Amino acid sequence: MTRVANVSRTREIDAALRRRAREVIPGGMYGHLSANNLPEEYPQFYARSEGSRVWDVDGNEYVDLMCSFGPVILGHRHPAVEAAVSAQLATGDTQAGPAPCMVELAELLVERVSHADWAMFAKNGSDANTICLMIARAATGNNKVLAARGAYHGSAPWSTPVVRGVTPEDRASVQYYTFNDLASVEAAAAHAAGDVAAVIVSPFKHDAGFDQELVDPAFARGLRGLCDRIGAALVLDEVRAGFRLNHGGSWETIGVEPDLSAWSKAIANGYALAAVLGSAPLAEAASSIFVTGSFWYQAAPMAAAVATITALREQSAVASMLQRGIRLREGLQAQARSAGVAICQTGPPQMPNLRFVGDENFERSRLFGGACAAGGVIVHPRHNWFVSAALSDDDVDDALATTEMAFAAVREQFGGS
Amino acid sequence: MTRVANVSRTREIDAALRRRAREVIPGGMYGHLSANNLPEEYPQFYARSEGSRVWDVDGNEYVDLMCSFGPVILGHRHPAVEAAVSAQLATGDTQAGPAPCMVELAELLVERVSHADWAMFAKNGSDANTICLMIARAATGNNKVLAARGAYHGSAPWSTPVVRGVTPEDRASVQYYTFNDLASVEAAAAHAAGDVAAVIVSPFKHDAGFDQELVDPAFARGLRGLCDRIGAALVLDEVRAGFRLNHGGSWETIGVEPDLSAWSKAIANGYALAAVLGSAPLAEAASSIFVTGSFWYQAAPMAAAVATITALREQSAVASMLQRGIRLREGLQAQARSAGVAICQTGPPQMPNLRFVGDENFERSRLFGGACAAGGVIVHPRHNWFVSAALSDDDVDDALATTEMAFAAVREQFGGS
Repeated sequence: MTRVANVSRTREIDAALRRRAREVIPGGMYGHLSANNLPEEYPQFYARSEGSRVWDVDGNEYVDLMCSFGPVILGHRHPAVEAAVSAQLATGDTQAGPAPCMVELAELLVERVSHADWAMFAKNGSDANTICLMIARAATGNNKVLAARGAYHGSAPWSTPVVRGVTPEDRASVQYYTFNDLASVEAAAAHAAGDVAAVIVSPFKHDAGFDQELVDPAFARGLRGLCDRIGAALVLDEVRAGFRLNHGGSWETIGVEPDLSAWSKAIANGYALAAVLGSAPLAEAASSIFVTGSFWYQAAPMAAAVATITALREQSAVASMLQRGIRLREGLQAQARSAGVAICQTGPPQMPNLRFVGDENFERSRLFGGACAAGGVIVHPRHNWFVSAALSDDDVDDALATTEMAFAAVREQFGGS
Repeated sequence: MTRVANVSRTREIDAALRRRAREVIPGGMYGHLSANNLPEEYPQFYARSEGSRVWDVDGNEYVDLMCSFGPVILGHRHPAVEAAVSAQLATGDTQAGPAPCMVELAELLVERVSHADWAMFAKNGSDANTICLMIARAATGNNKVLAARGAYHGSAPWSTPVVRGVTPEDRASVQYYTFNDLASVEAAAAHAAGDVAAVIVSPFKHDAGFDQELVDPAFARGLRGLCDRIGAALVLDEVRAGFRLNHGGSWETIGVEPDLSAWSKAIANGYALAAVLGSAPLAEAASSIFVTGSFWYQAAPMAAAVATITALREQSAVASMLQRGIRLREGLQAQARSAGVAICQTGPPQMPNLRFVGDENFERSRLFGGACAAGGVIVHPRHNWFVSAALSDDDVDDALATTEMAFAAVREQFGGS
């Protein structure tokens, strides 16, 4: 059980692995799963995962509210997904060509996602976004891309948020607009003067370190109208949100269809896969570019994706994630109120985001996150969290037992607000 | 057995899958495993793989001399690799953080590859090459990269051989030289006028559609000297060749050490993994860039890599691949001579390349490849082939029984030469 928070949890094996890692990995770790920039209560290395829980290398158990930053949507080691992977691995994975499940998966995605007439597959979310832009450029003959300022579309040179190692030319084709501000998109398009290949946009604003912002349907419709008017492709970056908001595309409820969408993270419940989905008019451009990868035709991740997407709807996973997300959000709000700590929760409940009011340098959220880790709950101080369909009401309640103490720690350190 | 060639092998299931694929995948397939540009005797979809053999969806068996374009180095479904993957999947794969095997793998690579002091991991060979260039740019503050004209370094916009969907800016930082021609590298460096971040080079020239060319040790030493003189990083692209020529880096036998090397394909025997290896002076630059991916910390492919790299040396896999590659090459040469067909075999025997003399439009090699496929051997008409350590003398002899008929078909169609 995780109800008993214990800041003196053993961390010896993790510490030894971190020492070894510093000898053979730059900085000891890199990227979004690095614990370097997290409070010291977070482990770096994990030994085991099952359903809604993860265990670090020292055997400490956690309710996992990060889901590896999204990929784990049915919960860790979901039986149907693992069975599909095992069955596929027993016959073949990286073969002389793709397996039949590639066709099944493309058919399933085309059936589920309303704008999609076809699918291509890759390995990273960055691959999928980059391919969308290449297809848009091939289709339009234009070069420029309009992207929301501060949005994360992957860590390729054109998109990584850190410019070290990036050339000015890597960004030369990107013009920036403000999410939910159509006038800023029009201005960016005007600045690109007839050379716009694509407008890329996330289903909602989920920039790390900021309040999340749902899309204004009028903004989405405006983007569609703009793209139609100037002959650009509308690209929806579903990498982070895909399948957590809907069993189809994230904008289907508001009735706006992109021309291209980029998917990855959750589509195979943690197995490495990305997908580009597109509408029929872009199929020819899609087949005119040359993109490929050594592992893009791997059968096991595709079998995992078929099992994942099937199970998501069979289990009514979106409704389940929404319900547990709301339970968590309401619990957090009540706890913060009781503790006299002002918080701001934004974004879809399936992808919770919690900010402490007046917490300019994330000091409160770091203290909160560290206290949660010490108490057996993995959240993130600056990034949205992720609910999986494996999360039960009891899991939420277990998590809340820890967050209550974490709020108390914030109150004690920083006072009320 | 594959000795009995049969051009009327059943292909109904493959044909039906191709029809379905054309409805939901642009052009029916894309990338390097597409059968669209191959003779009609090649299947598109595969059902099963084991050791040196693959089976298409209609149950036809083939000796696999392509190894999925390199990833399969120990043979399909190698027991030690599969056991490592199963064991890791039974505990966790895409978790809240990396597993201990990430450290073990980094340590193993640093131990095996002489220039390497550290390792980072990604998913695609393209990722690894791009990260090398980003690190070189971060370290030097320079932008330009010198690359061999016609070399394949992946399908990212800066490197894909097809420029559809690519902007001029994507290539603006790349200057081209001629492999094995140091004067051309000096000229490219002079043209880049003090702004060279890196020189990227393959261990040997393995451009598709051309004779392969081993590196001139003086050229390799010259690149090292040039990079030292102008303060650029020497990047060795080991993606295709890595671990087929040596159990360490491909240039260790000639004594030239790069600053950075990019690995992928064979390092995990088909599981999706890429690695960047670097020398100590570049560790700080490596930790200053932001690169990451949703699946880059997956434990199972790292466990597969530890098992693969361990098994490679335990099995003396390089010697085995070399020996079978020589047996194949000598057999092909004798058959071609008997058939009165002039061929040119180039490159390391572990990565065979066969060209028909005077075969300008690849007509002979297409006929030959199609006849091989019909007779139960997978080769490629334009690209180098790959020998795996699972290939036995009997497998080579089985393959040669088919190639003998394929040479006869070439002789019959095109006459002697």
